[in-house]
Amino acid sequence: METMGRHIIAELWECDFDKLNDMQFIEQTFVDAALKSGAEVREVAFHKFAPQGVSGVVIISESHLTIHSFPEHGYASIDVYTCGDLDPSVAANYIADALNAGIRETIEMPRGMGPVNVPKSRMTVQA
Amino acid sequence: METMGRHIIAELWECDFDKLNDMQFIEQTFVDAALKSGAEVREVAFHKFAPQGVSGVVIISESHLTIHSFPEHGYASIDVYTCGDLDPSVAANYIADALNAGIRETIEMPRGMGPVNVPKSRMTVQA
Repeated sequence: METMGRHIIAELWECDFDKLNDMQFIEQTFVDAALKSGAEVREVAFHKFAPQGVSGVVIISESHLTIHSFPEHGYASIDVYTCGDLDPSVAANYIADALNAGIRETIEMPRGMGPVNVPKSRMTVQA
Repeated sequence: METMGRHIIAELWECDFDKLNDMQFIEQTFVDAALKSGAEVREVAFHKFAPQGVSGVVIISESHLTIHSFPEHGYASIDVYTCGDLDPSVAANYIADALNAGIRETIEMPRGMGPVNVPKSRMTVQA
């Protein structure tokens, strides 16, 4: 198996409070995001914090998707890491849409290619 | 809870094949790394691939640690993401030592501070 991967780091702001605090919604969104990108889901683990916030991961055959949400700040910290032929932006965009993110800051890091490279691309989208 | 976090991306090369292929060893190493850095472990999910390779995550109250190992390439793709007062380099160094990584390329990304920033620091260590 090739080591080469693509890792999108997305900082989502101005998301809906209620969605960021709904663990079942987030878990379903992440599984759907993985499947829509063509990934094979292997492990799913989410945790709800008190009084608010959700952390979780979907381990896929092609790497992982993670979230840490801070509903009180409208902020979600997202990582979508894929290897093989998958495009991580499919899942990253699906998640940002699902959370109604008003501001989306994303970078893409190549992984598994030797030295750590500086981000290949950087994008800011303000809804 | 503050959104600010520190995310270490570590590319480890020249690791031991047997360690990279031992799911129990990796899972224990990751839980120990989290605890040594002062984190509180919330969820643990690891998966062993055939014929080789391990992916997994430890969700901590302060974010997460992940690994994808490629034993046949001596490569482990590591993320250690912490918020609060924790120092992610404690866990990252513990993991690199445990896997006997010969080459360690790491960068640290600030998270949850508004726009995505370019890496704050970058380090290459060759054993």
